Amino acid sequence: MHRFMLTGMSGGEFWLTGDELRHLAVVRLGPGDTVIGFDGEGSYRGVITEVGAERAVCRIEAALPGTGEAAARIYLVMGLAKGEKIEWVIQKGTELGMSGFIPLVTARSIVRPDESRRAAREARRRKIAAEAAKQCGRIRPPAIWPVAAWAELPALLPPDTAYILAWEEEKERSFRAELAQTDWGRPLALLIGPEGGFTPAEAGFAARELKAAPVSLGERVLRSETAALAVLALALGAAGDLG
Amino acid sequence: MHRFMLTGMSGGEFWLTGDELRHLAVVRLGPGDTVIGFDGEGSYRGVITEVGAERAVCRIEAALPGTGEAAARIYLVMGLAKGEKIEWVIQKGTELGMSGFIPLVTARSIVRPDESRRAAREARRRKIAAEAAKQCGRIRPPAIWPVAAWAELPALLPPDTAYILAWEEEKERSFRAELAQTDWGRPLALLIGPEGGFTPAEAGFAARELKAAPVSLGERVLRSETAALAVLALALGAAGDLG
Repeated sequence: MHRFMLTGMSGGEFWLTGDELRHLAVVRLGPGDTVIGFDGEGSYRGVITEVGAERAVCRIEAALPGTGEAAARIYLVMGLAKGEKIEWVIQKGTELGMSGFIPLVTARSIVRPDESRRAAREARRRKIAAEAAKQCGRIRPPAIWPVAAWAELPALLPPDTAYILAWEEEKERSFRAELAQTDWGRPLALLIGPEGGFTPAEAGFAARELKAAPVSLGERVLRSETAALAVLALALGAAGDLG
Repeated sequence: MHRFMLTGMSGGEFWLTGDELRHLAVVRLGPGDTVIGFDGEGSYRGVITEVGAERAVCRIEAALPGTGEAAARIYLVMGLAKGEKIEWVIQKGTELGMSGFIPLVTARSIVRPDESRRAAREARRRKIAAEAAKQCGRIRPPAIWPVAAWAELPALLPPDTAYILAWEEEKERSFRAELAQTDWGRPLALLIGPEGGFTPAEAGFAARELKAAPVSLGERVLRSETAALAVLALALGAAGDLG
């Protein structure tokens, strides 16, 4: 059944506008058809009663259980990489169940984003997250932050956040061992480096200031987007949020 | 240090030809520079002694430990999807450490590959796997099969292969629980459906003929390429092959 972000709800009805109204037309649904409307609080099964030029109205039949949200709060902090990699990770990280995404300026990022296109880029990333949330069954998209610097992380993430930093220089501690010791009641931030990896100085900062545990992802060299999705899948899996 | 697929080895030397020779030129390496050469058996540190029009010769300094290969033998069997999705999964599945990839004809695949381009498509997929293996540190790429039908799977995979089928219709058994009971001494094949999912008939065939265990990947609807990478990361992680 098709899901739509509802615009408003009142008196046993919800309504769809804008892009959601256009989407309704594209999938050729109209009066009498059943749809699911959701907002950041929940989702509702409804029957379309009218479709106008500005909005479609649906009579609510039932509130639906479940939120599609992971129980664990897992944030992905990813060193700046090419735009399409970031977008790909935002889309698939949303499906997997991440709570938020922070693109991080790192020493070895080769990308220097064009400042003049910043607003458009941030808007596109949020739209990708919103569409992925809609399609995968979540009632709200993950938070998508603007590009941040290391020093900002403590202010952006909850104060009790635990940090894990994936680092190819780490030879002893495995990610799996670290996950086995994770307290899923605390938010968890996973730090993934750019293609060139984190520098020793960055890993040192993370260890001192963020109490980040450096971990190895094994022998093979992973592209940053592969590492990002792997750590999300492994963490959400360990938390019980991927079946 | 740059890695190259070596063409041949003898008398304390190995040599590079063809695309590998061209790659050497692109990264501007020449006599006196150290490189790593690998074949399906191992890898070797060597110093370039000469670069000619047809080949570059390297004097072997040391055989290197490790193969970059996962200890667990994990195969990904994926319902046909758009070509670029298959190619992403081949690339990233190679980095994660899969042993082989089989594209599977399924009832709900909307893709009908163009037969006239089949050889080119298969060659491109094998090249993607070979390049990903080279870049991520493996000494051999995963096996990349041509498109297969359900009935062929037992002939393509080892006879003691255990099968797990990820299915959105499965509500009880979790992938995580199934992994906890997996015998890593046996090859494991992970079955991922096309965008429309496996049909009940397909899941039934897999259960009867392949002894496939149907499992859930949780509440959220995953794109087929997201599911593919998630199950590979979770399985290789559980096997200890991702740190």
